[in-house]
Amino acid sequence: MFQRILIANRGEIALRIIRTCREMGIETVAVYSEADRGAHYLELANEAYCIGPAAASESYLMINRIISAAEIGNVQAIHPGYGFLAENAHFAEVCRSCNIEFIGPPHEAMSQLGDKVSAREIAEKAKVNVVPGSDGLITSEKEAIEIAHKIGYPVLIKATAGGGGKGMRVAGNDIALKAGIKAASSEAEKAFSNAGVYLEKFIERPRHVEVQILADQHGNVLHLWERDCTMQRKHQKLVEESPAPNLPLAVREEMCKSAIRLIKTANYNNAGTVEFLVDKDNNFYFIEVNARIQVEHPVTEMVTGLDLIEQQIRVAAGEKLTIKQKQIPANGCAIELRINAEDPDNDFRGSPGKITKLRLPGGSGVRFDSHVYEGYTVSPYYDSLIGKLIIHKPTREQAINCMRRALEEIEVGGIKTTIPLAKKIFNNSEFVKGQVDTTFVERTW
Amino acid sequence: MFQRILIANRGEIALRIIRTCREMGIETVAVYSEADRGAHYLELANEAYCIGPAAASESYLMINRIISAAEIGNVQAIHPGYGFLAENAHFAEVCRSCNIEFIGPPHEAMSQLGDKVSAREIAEKAKVNVVPGSDGLITSEKEAIEIAHKIGYPVLIKATAGGGGKGMRVAGNDIALKAGIKAASSEAEKAFSNAGVYLEKFIERPRHVEVQILADQHGNVLHLWERDCTMQRKHQKLVEESPAPNLPLAVREEMCKSAIRLIKTANYNNAGTVEFLVDKDNNFYFIEVNARIQVEHPVTEMVTGLDLIEQQIRVAAGEKLTIKQKQIPANGCAIELRINAEDPDNDFRGSPGKITKLRLPGGSGVRFDSHVYEGYTVSPYYDSLIGKLIIHKPTREQAINCMRRALEEIEVGGIKTTIPLAKKIFNNSEFVKGQVDTTFVERTW
Repeated sequence: MFQRILIANRGEIALRIIRTCREMGIETVAVYSEADRGAHYLELANEAYCIGPAAASESYLMINRIISAAEIGNVQAIHPGYGFLAENAHFAEVCRSCNIEFIGPPHEAMSQLGDKVSAREIAEKAKVNVVPGSDGLITSEKEAIEIAHKIGYPVLIKATAGGGGKGMRVAGNDIALKAGIKAASSEAEKAFSNAGVYLEKFIERPRHVEVQILADQHGNVLHLWERDCTMQRKHQKLVEESPAPNLPLAVREEMCKSAIRLIKTANYNNAGTVEFLVDKDNNFYFIEVNARIQVEHPVTEMVTGLDLIEQQIRVAAGEKLTIKQKQIPANGCAIELRINAEDPDNDFRGSPGKITKLRLPGGSGVRFDSHVYEGYTVSPYYDSLIGKLIIHKPTREQAINCMRRALEEIEVGGIKTTIPLAKKIFNNSEFVKGQVDTTFVERTW
Repeated sequence: MFQRILIANRGEIALRIIRTCREMGIETVAVYSEADRGAHYLELANEAYCIGPAAASESYLMINRIISAAEIGNVQAIHPGYGFLAENAHFAEVCRSCNIEFIGPPHEAMSQLGDKVSAREIAEKAKVNVVPGSDGLITSEKEAIEIAHKIGYPVLIKATAGGGGKGMRVAGNDIALKAGIKAASSEAEKAFSNAGVYLEKFIERPRHVEVQILADQHGNVLHLWERDCTMQRKHQKLVEESPAPNLPLAVREEMCKSAIRLIKTANYNNAGTVEFLVDKDNNFYFIEVNARIQVEHPVTEMVTGLDLIEQQIRVAAGEKLTIKQKQIPANGCAIELRINAEDPDNDFRGSPGKITKLRLPGGSGVRFDSHVYEGYTVSPYYDSLIGKLIIHKPTREQAINCMRRALEEIEVGGIKTTIPLAKKIFNNSEFVKGQVDTTFVERTW
């Protein structure tokens, strides 16, 4: 097992990883930008190195500086967290070429799955349903129109290098399709330096359900059940839960089996997530693999009792998975709420600043994952997540009731947060009935 | 079901009860002394009434004021929490005579079990092992010496009305016995207005293990497994855990069955705890019943997944227990640590005052039950408990590792706390091996 790990990230996920390392008796080396200097979680690491100015492009995204810190810190492995370099196959490769284990999948699998077109090909090879669409990148307007007519409008134009909704357009007719391809292509070129786009049938009012996978380097692949992440705003997940409400067990099991086939076909190991869209008739279609730990992983931890960061570290160290698929429980219902420093009354604009008051919820069924505290200053430089409120109760009804009372308890002063929107969500009868789709937030509020 | 409940208590247990009531959709009426005015948890109740000055004898122990608040607040039931009036059978009787349900056992059962001599008689009737001793109160020195010779020295002199170590003495010979009876008797007279004492064989270096019971008004009695509360300081529990380490399953099951027999014999219902001493050979002896919810109830909640406050309320409202004994899980290991505002370097004297800094632990496996926050002032008037740190993990080893890292994270500024002692306990090899007894803390530190 590793004696010392560098955490190439910040905020709540850096603290999350430090916590598990402490529990495992592994030392940690943290890195921080000048904007994060003095943050309390850095004191919980064994060492911490400043790697540059506030802008992520000059610190958390600087591969050479992180590798230098890893070498000075004398670590055997690097955990990338999520975001920043977590899905950068080049970074994973550089780590390994420096004899530092990258705690994540093989960079080859990461590259293949990171490209959406090749990911679709892997899914097809694994006999996993994909959304009907172009079998590869669009090469001409004429070809695009032919494909759109074949699969039927509306269609979705997606950037092969895309993510988080960038480089994505919906088109309902030929004219919109031509304009959309141009717009998506140029947006993708700017954001990802890759203009390639492809077409998919647009699934109307879908649910977003994903399967957590855990795979070792010895060919063992387990699923840790699914998470429903349908409650989104502009493709940003707000609420995640397990099990997926109103999804028949047979569908969930079939989805989990599909995910395992895909992961095996991709020669993937470590933790990963296979994302699906689910239509009104509970048909599911593969959309992408997230080749990293996800923000919403605690939901799976609560229902399975497994520590996913620990599992990632063990697998990266070469350990075999000793748990059997049938031993993995799916206990009760877990729901995670992301709390962001954003102003719901001002188009969810970021609301950085000093937290002048913080009252946290506690008690039965409540887990809170956060790096912030009274007196902490939320930086404008990074994503706006300030905490994850995770509820675990025997039933979904109890979990929702517990979330409601926790939301009455939490108080964050000095900055604006998404708590008011969260209260609306958990008091919304359609959400409570589990009858929402990914467009629900925009349609409703 | 009740629409409105008054909580005749303060601090963490008042907040604990408010939380469950909110989750159940039951309104709450809080009461507070002048010392607790402005405490944040009062805002989470639907109403709050001041019932008198800081001294508990003039507020939280004033039956008439609490009943008045209940009548003004128009409640159907009163939850007494623990401490204060929780085991006052007269209070329970007054509540019921005012047509207000007392959320606790019948006052008749409470009276009988509250008296230690009659509790022993009930245990004997239920064929539950009791510590060998006098079959009733000591009436003369001569009788006491005869009994002591029969059961063998050392013997324990105990007040029939005692609790928390008051009115208790150990005697190793006739002279010490005579002196001890006088001292215990006079101490008990002062503390409980009841001078009656009895004798028990003194079990050397015992463990303290207790069984959580849940009983409805229809004759159904369940056990929710045991808690080991061996780690004490001067008869005050510091750490509680479930399952009891190194106690064979057969012993645990036999203890749980004994507890059920005793509770049935006492015609008891609601939540209750049957306490046992366990000797080196794993023989167990009944010591007393705690006829209330206990401070350490979260340990049982974590391993069983049940909300004990909810169960208390349901049972008090007349509902039948629908869970079956065999369906009650004992998942993983849960450990609770009590954090007190006391100075470990100054003989654990109370350390009231303003909490100027508070950093709470969070993340996987961590539950924190507390009414305090940064800026809260710990009152000198009440018990020194400021929070309960509860860890739940698949194994005891993982739970201890998680507790250690949580203890590195927690910071309480402005007052002294028992956190330094807690760190010693969780790093002590005998505790880690589960090889401690109730005298361990005094012997070791």
